Amino acid sequence: MKVRIVLVRPRNPLNIGAAARGMANFGFDDLVVVKPFEPVWRETTSAVGAEKLVLAARATENLSDAVGDFQLVLGTTAVRGRDLQRPVVRSTELGDFLKERGADRVAILFGNEKSGLSNAYLEKCHAYLTVPTSAEQPSMNLSHAVTVVCYELSRVRADLGARGKTMAPADAASVEQLVSHAMDLFKAAGYLTFIPARKKAEKIRRSFLNWRLGASDVRLLHGIFRYLGHKMAPPREKPRTDN
Amino acid sequence: MKVRIVLVRPRNPLNIGAAARGMANFGFDDLVVVKPFEPVWRETTSAVGAEKLVLAARATENLSDAVGDFQLVLGTTAVRGRDLQRPVVRSTELGDFLKERGADRVAILFGNEKSGLSNAYLEKCHAYLTVPTSAEQPSMNLSHAVTVVCYELSRVRADLGARGKTMAPADAASVEQLVSHAMDLFKAAGYLTFIPARKKAEKIRRSFLNWRLGASDVRLLHGIFRYLGHKMAPPREKPRTDN
Repeated sequence: MKVRIVLVRPRNPLNIGAAARGMANFGFDDLVVVKPFEPVWRETTSAVGAEKLVLAARATENLSDAVGDFQLVLGTTAVRGRDLQRPVVRSTELGDFLKERGADRVAILFGNEKSGLSNAYLEKCHAYLTVPTSAEQPSMNLSHAVTVVCYELSRVRADLGARGKTMAPADAASVEQLVSHAMDLFKAAGYLTFIPARKKAEKIRRSFLNWRLGASDVRLLHGIFRYLGHKMAPPREKPRTDN
Repeated sequence: MKVRIVLVRPRNPLNIGAAARGMANFGFDDLVVVKPFEPVWRETTSAVGAEKLVLAARATENLSDAVGDFQLVLGTTAVRGRDLQRPVVRSTELGDFLKERGADRVAILFGNEKSGLSNAYLEKCHAYLTVPTSAEQPSMNLSHAVTVVCYELSRVRADLGARGKTMAPADAASVEQLVSHAMDLFKAAGYLTFIPARKKAEKIRRSFLNWRLGASDVRLLHGIFRYLGHKMAPPREKPRTDN
């Protein structure tokens, strides 16, 4: 899927640079600016790491030159107060929508910081895209909106990178051995002798099972138990008795 | 679910305001700033519509004051090049992770614009949160990162309402107290004196954070530590020294 981000009549060049940075974070590099407000719109100060993207961006005088060869054009809008003439796609449902549409080349339009996309541009869109924001504070910063949409696009495109590695969980037998070890320690220490050993074992087992112990946790605990056990054992004395 | 956004040592006040705007867009309003770099850090120029949120934000001198009463502390990181000591959660899988953990109070830490979260802060986290960015351009603008995470949280929040009740997880301050108690015990016992106390504390903290301790687990462990501590202390003898 080829994605193009189109900024329509953006006012603040810093926002253009920041939008480019957000695009680059999610692996998109095709930026077109329609009728930039400022003649000098290529701003790289805020484009940290995405300077090349900004320098390669194209400015056009009209929308056709920007998206003519794209199969699906989505116009972002806060939706409220507009007479909706198109299907409205929530960003959180973008994946299903794109799958269903099956377009290979998708352009996404973002309007001016103050007024969003005018009707003339919305008219040219296949559908409207909206980020579900809070009713009290619906209006997003332009580069935030671009970044969130690119994030969503990247999630639906494919899994980037590898999954996080987690620690190997301890197996049941290891946990049982750990319970026994704890019980030995308790016995040696004379810990709560008025409570039956079975009760104590149940409680400590429940905890160990809840804790999602990893194999390395088990080793650590055995080491600690062993140490405390040695420390506790009075040398050359008869073993104590416990329940 | 109660969500707190914590900015650790942010440099640019404009980023703080912009982060607040992103939070407000998705209905979050609890912002804490740890050790702001600039004395005048409350920036409302970039907080368009979220000025109140910035003015209500709290600054703290340390992390405990920021998240002590929170049950799950996630540290955002780009992951690359770090020795990972915690589970890594991709933002796109945050919903499943939160559902599984069942915490009611979740704090999310964001580091400094230049260097991210230092190890001292990452040490105090239950897990790391990462936004899956492009390998070529991994580093996000601070307010973009906050906005994307809030967007993701808002999408999963609805799901989390209807989950089954699990044991109340221990909060961050209780876990720290337990680490201290364990360290006292180790010191009294002369446990592995050739390893620096800091190293031992890191290891035991990592385990405690991994184990998803419940409030009752914490009580149980304090009881055990206390008991072993008494047992260990030879009556009428000088206190031992440890590192």
